[in-house]
Amino acid sequence: MTSEVNGSLRVLGLDPGSRTTGWGCVAVEGSRSRLLACGCIEPPDNTPLPQRLALLAAELGVLLEQWRPAIAVLEEPFHGVNSRSLIVLAQARGALLATLAAREVTIEEYSPAEVKSAVTGNGRAGKDQVARMVAMLLPGAGRLRADASDALAVALCFAARRPLLRAAAAAGAR
Amino acid sequence: MTSEVNGSLRVLGLDPGSRTTGWGCVAVEGSRSRLLACGCIEPPDNTPLPQRLALLAAELGVLLEQWRPAIAVLEEPFHGVNSRSLIVLAQARGALLATLAAREVTIEEYSPAEVKSAVTGNGRAGKDQVARMVAMLLPGAGRLRADASDALAVALCFAARRPLLRAAAAAGAR
Repeated sequence: MTSEVNGSLRVLGLDPGSRTTGWGCVAVEGSRSRLLACGCIEPPDNTPLPQRLALLAAELGVLLEQWRPAIAVLEEPFHGVNSRSLIVLAQARGALLATLAAREVTIEEYSPAEVKSAVTGNGRAGKDQVARMVAMLLPGAGRLRADASDALAVALCFAARRPLLRAAAAAGAR
Repeated sequence: MTSEVNGSLRVLGLDPGSRTTGWGCVAVEGSRSRLLACGCIEPPDNTPLPQRLALLAAELGVLLEQWRPAIAVLEEPFHGVNSRSLIVLAQARGALLATLAAREVTIEEYSPAEVKSAVTGNGRAGKDQVARMVAMLLPGAGRLRADASDALAVALCFAARRPLLRAAAAAGAR
């Protein structure tokens, strides 16, 4: 897997869902992030769940080949939703995680509150507020679909926390 | 995929879990089922979840190559458990379902009550009762581990319901 080239780290944010999985790839350079590409994986309507999952896994494989991120970042599953939606969501996550691990991509996970907090400074920010900050932090992204914007928010959360992680690692090494 | 050879249908039962996934392959011949093989997929302890999922998917791929079942059968996820276990279980299911669908294996799902009812005649049968019936219905299996026995119970549920499905299909075709 490619990773850090000229101090630039490729991070893939994922917002898993069985109907629509948002993705966004950013290049993290020091304290700045640059949008490389983003989009949504959307199996055709009426596709049975197992085929949707296979398609998610296959499309993610294509994205990994194309963008070669060193890190993939996902939100932790949200326990508040009903168990039926939770099962479907977790099955989509499972297909994606298996694909990432099979290709040895490092995986990071953050809670929804951590993502909101990192992007807007407020762990209880609304969806709109998060979307506006993503558009501001990644100029040139144009009008983003909600799932792609959510995926980019997760990638930006990783980018925002990276200097802290580095500082912590450096302190640990001393 | 191989399927019905000389009136024999290969059915793979799966009992998904991220720590242990039970599997059992039976040949369904008319109203009788014959054990072909069974076992457990067990990632080493301390393996992180994404790597466990990738290993499940990879090992399932090997089983599909080796046994070439036409049908895979799983229990529907059980909603009664807490949401944390449900998420882990559903992620394991997701990795397995994506692998099955990618290889175009037909997938059937039954509720736990349907499996118990088909195997023992009682939808509320205990685990021990199910295990004893599996051992009786598949002589020569020897002492089975619980997860493998559960996987075989799901495969036997499919086998038991098959004459009914056929009759229904025939009635529908008339």
